[in-house]
This record gives sequence, structure tokens and C-alpha cells, in this order.
Amino acid sequence: MADALPTSPLARPFPELKPMAGVRFGATAAGIRYAGRTDLVMAEFTPGTTVAGVFTRSKCPGAPVDWCRAALAGGVARALVVNAGNANVFTGRAGYEATQANAADAARLTQCAASEVFLASTGVIGEVLPYRKISDALPGLYATLSDDGWEGAARGIMTTDTFPKGAVRETTIAGTTVRIQGIAKGSGMIAPDMATMLAFIATDAVLPAPVLQTLLSRGTEKSFNCTTVDSDTSTSDMVLLFATGRAGNPAITDAHDPALADFIQALDSLLLELALLVVRDGEGATKMMHIRVTGATSDESAKRVAMAIANSPLVKTAIAGEDANWGRVVMAVGKSGEPANRDTLSVGIGGTWIARNGTVVAGYDETPVVAHMKGQEIEIDVDLGLANGIGQAWTCDLTHGYIDINGSYRS
Amino acid sequence: MADALPTSPLARPFPELKPMAGVRFGATAAGIRYAGRTDLVMAEFTPGTTVAGVFTRSKCPGAPVDWCRAALAGGVARALVVNAGNANVFTGRAGYEATQANAADAARLTQCAASEVFLASTGVIGEVLPYRKISDALPGLYATLSDDGWEGAARGIMTTDTFPKGAVRETTIAGTTVRIQGIAKGSGMIAPDMATMLAFIATDAVLPAPVLQTLLSRGTEKSFNCTTVDSDTSTSDMVLLFATGRAGNPAITDAHDPALADFIQALDSLLLELALLVVRDGEGATKMMHIRVTGATSDESAKRVAMAIANSPLVKTAIAGEDANWGRVVMAVGKSGEPANRDTLSVGIGGTWIARNGTVVAGYDETPVVAHMKGQEIEIDVDLGLANGIGQAWTCDLTHGYIDINGSYRS
Repeated sequence: MADALPTSPLARPFPELKPMAGVRFGATAAGIRYAGRTDLVMAEFTPGTTVAGVFTRSKCPGAPVDWCRAALAGGVARALVVNAGNANVFTGRAGYEATQANAADAARLTQCAASEVFLASTGVIGEVLPYRKISDALPGLYATLSDDGWEGAARGIMTTDTFPKGAVRETTIAGTTVRIQGIAKGSGMIAPDMATMLAFIATDAVLPAPVLQTLLSRGTEKSFNCTTVDSDTSTSDMVLLFATGRAGNPAITDAHDPALADFIQALDSLLLELALLVVRDGEGATKMMHIRVTGATSDESAKRVAMAIANSPLVKTAIAGEDANWGRVVMAVGKSGEPANRDTLSVGIGGTWIARNGTVVAGYDETPVVAHMKGQEIEIDVDLGLANGIGQAWTCDLTHGYIDINGSYRS
Repeated sequence: MADALPTSPLARPFPELKPMAGVRFGATAAGIRYAGRTDLVMAEFTPGTTVAGVFTRSKCPGAPVDWCRAALAGGVARALVVNAGNANVFTGRAGYEATQANAADAARLTQCAASEVFLASTGVIGEVLPYRKISDALPGLYATLSDDGWEGAARGIMTTDTFPKGAVRETTIAGTTVRIQGIAKGSGMIAPDMATMLAFIATDAVLPAPVLQTLLSRGTEKSFNCTTVDSDTSTSDMVLLFATGRAGNPAITDAHDPALADFIQALDSLLLELALLVVRDGEGATKMMHIRVTGATSDESAKRVAMAIANSPLVKTAIAGEDANWGRVVMAVGKSGEPANRDTLSVGIGGTWIARNGTVVAGYDETPVVAHMKGQEIEIDVDLGLANGIGQAWTCDLTHGYIDINGSYRS
């Protein structure tokens, strides 16, 4: 299925991800669901690697999410196993047993405790994971792990994704150069309420798990959690951040340490890049939308208004049709349930204010807006005119491609 | 635009709406937006007619919604004026002036106070209503009002609707035969949070406005507010219920009077019929979905779970593709934010339980479910297994037709 889809017109080339000391990746074809492609990925981390994670807020999370939540308590990671094609969700006791078995497999290979193994699965919901295929494939896969397996891993975790996704940042902590790089997958069932989809990020920085967790949680809120493809929150969302400590920077014990300023900026920027790559591969996407909301009663309120606009099928289909139908933006503001006042509301598209304080700008000339709508990157501005809260959201348009993909994904 | 759309495959024939004493309807072509079709509707009610209304909860309601909310305080109605093609929303002071002018026009014709005139507009948002066209057309329209203008009125208020919608019930109050009949329009931007779209209902019962309001508010909650087409709540939603009193039933002063039992049942049933007609004309719809949720911690919670399923693009596209992808139902339950426990959750389609208590039913045979999916009426059952809360929702599938209609509606 994934192979049959044309590459998103919004795709970005995979960046050069250089080897990172303490991290080895590999991918293989375990035949879980798809034929003729890799679908099983493994990573090994050097002893002492710390880990942080954020997960879906779904009330029906997959077995691997349960597993990782429990494993995260230890704060250390030695291995990661990810499969595509089957999400191991809603599989009852069989799902739990599958996670136990595969964690034990990876623990045996990497000579660690099972609780140091992290698991993720993505694909169809409700079918029992053929975990023995994974058990059988892991020893051979482990033997191929290498320093330069990042892109192969990014490809191995794809489902309806049409291009592999990666990002890298180099920064410093207290004068020591450190790197952060990661991969992500995701295309549909994207409406993060915590994290979204799958993303695996590693840094060679020395950072204790609690600090790492704080940075990841904060960064996710401003990146993945500001994006949506179709308003449908996955049962399998997960972002994991591993720190190998190989860069040897001075020890940091407090997430608020000023020495982390550059690192935080780099991490946040990388998280946003990965999140936007997922939006760029939104099922059927032809255009990106960036919605900025100002003048709200709080930042939280602004973000909810931005997400209401981003999740509106009528706004998304208008964008797909290159129609500057700003009335639908007004509708979405109105339905958000957030404080808003029609008579102080302003709406702009592509930098042109179309309506100010509840009515169309006198002499509004649609020409520059029409030109903007023909582009791939659509900017929507909403000023609520109430207070100083700001927020933003990113999404893609809603097209025939989405219907094509989702009317037939499973079968 | 509306004329070009093929009739929904889920359409129902317009019922026979006989004359109702005290109500006269008419429709004409005022050239507000569409060419070659009626777009302006007027009704006159006999003196003493009481009225109740429910309106959109949008924070950006249209000027006619503001007007009706204020007029409703009087509890009496003599006239109704509705136009299609322009919603008179987000039009600032000009929008308010338009409502004042058209209410004054109708008041002059029917010799009543402007506050006894009710107004509704539906169509494009953000364009100033050409209210003088309405002023010019009203005298001629008034001269044509007749007892049998119901179907013409139902056609005159259509926008992207593909068939006119009406319903009728005959019942009794304390031994007196009374009738309830109404018309509705709506097809997209349908996600009631209060009322949805436009519906106008009249009864010849004698009922004071406060009683009428209680019955309408309660009935709407169980009908219109349980339906969704695209999760986008309109700025113009409105249901008005008029009671002419011509049936001459004994006076009722309390909405809880047992003498109202049959009337309430008839009204609720009519409200649901009208609401489902709107879903049947959902933009691009090819299938109806009825979602029943049981075992929730409360009725409110059950309804929210049902609506989360009904609003999921992934569930709706699966239904369009005739794919019994029940995993997406699990996803939607999980994202609803309502209390749910994966291990007590059961999912059924078309009367067949597919999963029980968090896992697939042993020996599940998909055959009857596959057959059910090929039909036009899809039944989805979810049992949360927590307590006794029940709720339901109705929606339609999400198809290429929705994208076609909404990528080009305005232009």
C-alpha cells in the first residue's frame, strides 16, 4: 500500500545523519504485513544511555505504549525495537505477551534487562501481532546494526508515509559540542494530544533522565502537539529521546540550568522540524497551513482556537481548492468554544488582513490573497483582539488523496 | 451550485404537508446569489402564535441569530423571513442594519411589531447581505402566501442541499387532535452544539411560549444535537417552533403536564426525522451511520463517545470504503477523552460483536459484517462496560463528494 502512494508534493529530502557515538541502527524485512520492504527496526544504545518519552493520551493505548510507560520509570535504555504494519493495539492479553516476548528477545541480544528495551508498533489496530516473526528476525537484524543505519531505520518504520523523515541539530552545552538527531513517521491518524505518531531522537549529550524528560515534554507541547492532519489521535503515539552521554559535556542536574539554553533551542527546533515533516506527509496533503492566533485570553486558548481552525474540514477543503474562504475561519473560531468576540475579531491570509474588528476591510482587494492561495505554504492569521494570548498550529489541506488512502488502507 | 449537485442517494421524498390553520408560507426568487431558483421564503402566523427557539453556540453567530435571540424574549411570532445564499455573518454594523430593515419590512406587511418578526439567513459568510433585494421582493412575496406553501418554502431555503426536507406528526393533547409539521435545510457545516442548520416547525397546538421552549430544548438535545456531518458548527444554526393555537386543546401551563406525553413523543420523533434528513443530505454522503454507545459512566459521556466516533474522518472514510475497520472505532473511543477501559471495551458492527472486553471475539467471522457494510445504513455498537450510561449519534460517511463540494462552494 505505502509503496503505491506517490511521494507527497510537500516532501523534503532526508538530511545527512552522521554516525552518533553510542547509537547503532538497523532495519530488515520481517514480513509482518508488507511484502518487499523493511518493516522491522532495531537500535542499540551504549550502556548508561538515559531516556525520556511522551505518549498518546488515548484511553485505548497500544500494548507497546503500556510497555514503554512502565520501562520509562527506570530512566535508562539499551535497545529499541519498532515494527510497522501492525500496531499491537486492542489485542488484549496476546498484545501484552507479544511485548514481553520481543523485549526479552532484544534484552538477550543486547545483554540488558527487559525493562531497558523500548518497543513501538505502528499499523493496523485490532490484529494480534505476529511477534514470533519479530523474534525470528531480531538476531539477524542485530548482527547488521551499524553507525549509519539512520535513514534505513526511518524507512523501516513507514506505513502510509511517502518519504522518510529525519532532522539533525548541532549545538553546545557549557562549551561542549553536542548533536541531536532523530527520525519520525506519521501520515494519518495524526492529532497529537501529547505526542503524536512515532519519533525517535538521540543526542550524545550527558543529561540525566529527569532533565531529559522535562525538556522533551516542554518541547513536544510546542511542536508535535501543535500539529494535526485529521484530528484523529492515534493509539500508538510516542516520542522517545535517548541521551548517550558520549559528548562528555559537564553534568547538568536541573532542566532550568542556563547552560541548557542553546540545547533547548536546538531540541525545540528539531522537534518542530520532525513534526512538520509529518504534516508535510499528511495523507493526501498538497498544501501546508500555518495558523497563528494572537489576542487571546491566554496562550492555551489561542492554541485551542488555532487547532479548531486546523481541524476544520471546511477550512481544509477550502485551502485544497485554493479558495480564500475566510468565512470558514470565522466559523472555526466560533465553534472552538474559546472566548471570542465577533466585533474584535480580525482575519488575515498570506499577510493581508481581510477582515478587521468583525467586518471586511474597506476596499479589500483579494488579488494578493488569491496569489498566496496558489502556493504550497498557506499562512492564516487570526487576532481575537481580547488580550495577549498567542498560539499556533500547523496542518495540511484535505483532498481526494485522503479519501483514497483511507477508504482502502486496511483491505 | 446547488442545482449542479446530484441528489443524495440517501434522499427521502418530501412528505405531504397539509395546510395548517394559522400558517401561510411562500417563496420567491430574489436574486440574492443563485440564478433561476427561489431563495427568499416568508411565513405569516396568526395573531397569538407563540414561539420557541434554539440557536448555535458559536461565538461568532450571524446577525439573524442575534436578532432572533432578542425577539424570542417576547414569546410571540407573526412572521418569518428566510433567505438562502448569504448568511449575513461577520458583516458588522451592516449586518445588524440589514436585520432591522428586513424585520421592519415584514412587520409593515403583517401589521405587527418588528420584534414579532423572526429572521434567518444561510449561505456565504462575510459578505454584506443585499437586504434591499429582500425589501423589494417582500411585498410581492407576501401577496402570494398560501396554505400549501410548505414544500416551496423547504426548497427556497436550500443551499448545497440536494433535496427538500419536511416531516409531519399528528397526535393529541388531552383528547384534542393536534398536528406538528416542519421543514429543514442543511448539508454541510453541520455539527450541532445546540441546534444545527435551519429548521422551522409549526403546530396548531395551544401552548404557551415557556412550555414550548422547554419541549424544544429537550427535544433538540436528543435529535439535532446528536447529529454531525463534518464536525463544523455553523454560525447560523437555528430551530424555531411556532404554535398557532388553532387546534383549541385545553390550556397547558407546565411542560411536565402528563397530558403532553403524546405530544412530546410526536415532537421528539419529528425533530429526529428532520435531523436525520439533514444527515441524509450530508455533503457527499453515500451511507448513514448510527452509533449507539452503552456502558458509559453517564449518558453525557456516552453521547460524547458516540460523537467522537461520528466525527472521526478515519471512521467515516472507512465506512465510505465499505471497510469494517473497527480498529478506527477503538481509536475514536480512545481519543474522546471520556472514561474508557480498553479491557472492558466491546465493538460491534451491524449487530455482530467483533471485539469483546478488549480483544477480538474468538473465531470472529467477518462475513455478515462485510455484507452489512455494503448497505446504506451502518450500525455501530460500542459497549464501554463501565456503568449504565447510554447515548447515540448519527452521521454520514466522508467521500470524494465532500471534497468536490467544499473545494469550490464559494467560487
